[in-house]
Amino acid sequence: MTAAKLLVGQSGGPTQVINASLAGLIEAGQRSGAFPEIWGLRHGIEGALGEPMVRLDQLGQGDLDRLARTPAAALGSCRHKLTPDDYGRIVDFFRRHEVRWFCYTGGNDSMDTCHQLARAAEDQRYALQVYGVPKTIDNDLVETDHCPGYGSAARYWAIATQETTLDLAAMRTYARVLVLECMGRNAGWLAAATALYKMRDEDGPHLLLTPERHFDEEAFLAQVETMLGRVGYCVVAASETIRDASGEYVARARGGMDRFGHQVVTAVGETLAQLVGERLGVKARASKPGTLQRTSVAYTSVVDRDEAREAGRVAARSLAAGRSGEMVTLRRPGGADYRCEFGAAPLAAIANHERPMPPEFFEEGGECVSTAFRNYALPLLGPAPEPLFQLA
Amino acid sequence: MTAAKLLVGQSGGPTQVINASLAGLIEAGQRSGAFPEIWGLRHGIEGALGEPMVRLDQLGQGDLDRLARTPAAALGSCRHKLTPDDYGRIVDFFRRHEVRWFCYTGGNDSMDTCHQLARAAEDQRYALQVYGVPKTIDNDLVETDHCPGYGSAARYWAIATQETTLDLAAMRTYARVLVLECMGRNAGWLAAATALYKMRDEDGPHLLLTPERHFDEEAFLAQVETMLGRVGYCVVAASETIRDASGEYVARARGGMDRFGHQVVTAVGETLAQLVGERLGVKARASKPGTLQRTSVAYTSVVDRDEAREAGRVAARSLAAGRSGEMVTLRRPGGADYRCEFGAAPLAAIANHERPMPPEFFEEGGECVSTAFRNYALPLLGPAPEPLFQLA
Repeated sequence: MTAAKLLVGQSGGPTQVINASLAGLIEAGQRSGAFPEIWGLRHGIEGALGEPMVRLDQLGQGDLDRLARTPAAALGSCRHKLTPDDYGRIVDFFRRHEVRWFCYTGGNDSMDTCHQLARAAEDQRYALQVYGVPKTIDNDLVETDHCPGYGSAARYWAIATQETTLDLAAMRTYARVLVLECMGRNAGWLAAATALYKMRDEDGPHLLLTPERHFDEEAFLAQVETMLGRVGYCVVAASETIRDASGEYVARARGGMDRFGHQVVTAVGETLAQLVGERLGVKARASKPGTLQRTSVAYTSVVDRDEAREAGRVAARSLAAGRSGEMVTLRRPGGADYRCEFGAAPLAAIANHERPMPPEFFEEGGECVSTAFRNYALPLLGPAPEPLFQLA
Repeated sequence: MTAAKLLVGQSGGPTQVINASLAGLIEAGQRSGAFPEIWGLRHGIEGALGEPMVRLDQLGQGDLDRLARTPAAALGSCRHKLTPDDYGRIVDFFRRHEVRWFCYTGGNDSMDTCHQLARAAEDQRYALQVYGVPKTIDNDLVETDHCPGYGSAARYWAIATQETTLDLAAMRTYARVLVLECMGRNAGWLAAATALYKMRDEDGPHLLLTPERHFDEEAFLAQVETMLGRVGYCVVAASETIRDASGEYVARARGGMDRFGHQVVTAVGETLAQLVGERLGVKARASKPGTLQRTSVAYTSVVDRDEAREAGRVAARSLAAGRSGEMVTLRRPGGADYRCEFGAAPLAAIANHERPMPPEFFEEGGECVSTAFRNYALPLLGPAPEPLFQLA
């Protein structure tokens, strides 16, 4: 193994389209002629500390097209916090294998990893170009209009919420409250997406609980009662990580800390459903699709998939053009129709920052989303599904 | 309101295709010319105790086609246990509105309601023809090869399991166990469906927990450990109602009793994930799509939808031909290719009976399903989705 290599890795929670970015990277990398070889890390940066790499530049167009339609992370992913020693070992590994270009697809923790790695290489006077491709269903990266992965997970929630609301409405003489548990670390982008295909008062969601606002038990129960009176049933969309005014997580079950020191909480849906049952005497259900919200192929947004693939291509072209220390960004030029342009921002500006939903994306009172949010998010979901039947 | 009426109702948990049966009923009812008017009950038989009916025979073909593609129960559904007094009141209601034909789409509780209603009409010497259309994602009705609704919910699980397994495999350096919580009252048909697209040892599920077998905590943990050693991760498909040898539900959360005296349990997925975390020290997740497994349009089986619609047509034609006291059944004639024929069975033979999975549908040891089960179930799912990319 002596040829100069472009090494690519996938990091953090998978999405419906992270493999589309990988396909874009490989195809533009092949076409550029700039990279003698293209290899993949297994399980992200953890792979550089142990697992063998895998050769990627020999994949054909048929493979790449299929890869772009496959959910999860084909190379394997990780949530791994590197120690200062690790960075040195990885630069040694890169030097040994002649890795001259490194491209990492991930969220803000991954962009920090990327940034630290670039600095470690500089410290060791090893010539390494580093590039980041954004990826997160949480849509919480700064410096970019939106993140590949969000449009598909948002489309999942927009559709799933309308479908399950029909089920709840049909069964409202039996169960009357449904809590949908949505992912999203410290931002409510995914919970908010549940409202994107809501057209009428009867459509869900009827309440939105996001980390941008403190959870207040009494106010919540009062809002549920109001909705039960007005609509006859109530769909609540809750981010898994909502907290009360004291900063305590609402979810009763605790899953410990992850390796970045983020507390892992679980079962906010079951917690709220039980609360409603106990306090209001109303039968309540909880649904938690979990990783299904980021893997369901049938819900993928074609806009999101195309953008994710192009983001991968842009990263390969940028490395081929000699650029380094940046992440691909997605920009929305003004104009009546949605368009996406690609740019770049320094890794240091992105690493470890989070972007919550801005206040103007919520409706007054925070119970639902604003028109500004719909205008922002709807184009990312691609064409809406066929309308459903409604009895007059 | 003096014309003779066919009255139709929907009952029990909705499915992706119960509205297809309704569309079939209405279109064949219209074509038969046997029914002066066709009306729908809101919220099933509860509607006959209070809610107004809705006229259906004026729906056009475009409406019926859209209805057939819409999940949940367009008329509204219920889980309502009638008292002996209720039956008398309903027969009075039928007499007052000249309801001469009644067709109910539902599961075994609903077939019992249907049966009791026919007897109450007989006792009161009111000429009423009654017909049942099978519907349940649980697939637990006797006297029929399978139930409309099952094929689509089974397809949901078959696909969703392969997709979420890819996610778990990608993240196996982070979380290593995923518990999928499947519906299914006292039978494992849906949990078993998670295995229908499993091709390799790496594909999920790796363990199946169904009500047909007692749950044994120590054996379960040992099996998870074995799978972690062999595959590196482990996907568990668990029916929500599994019990231990003493008859206790495994799920810690209790939701009380429903109106038929069935105990409502919840969160078996979270319960098992916490157990694995505490006892094996391994990060485990739970997913519980809840009503999404029975409402997701994108996962609907076209075979199931077509059969559900035809089952509705058969019921209308049977009533038009003067038959009563029966439920439509689905039969599978022998032969190399799957075909479905329609027949009938007496309501009394179906009411309150349940069909668990036969032992020959499980693999030796019960950890997975047998070839006999795959041969039985796969045709009900319709065409398989496009294959996903696998890194060699």
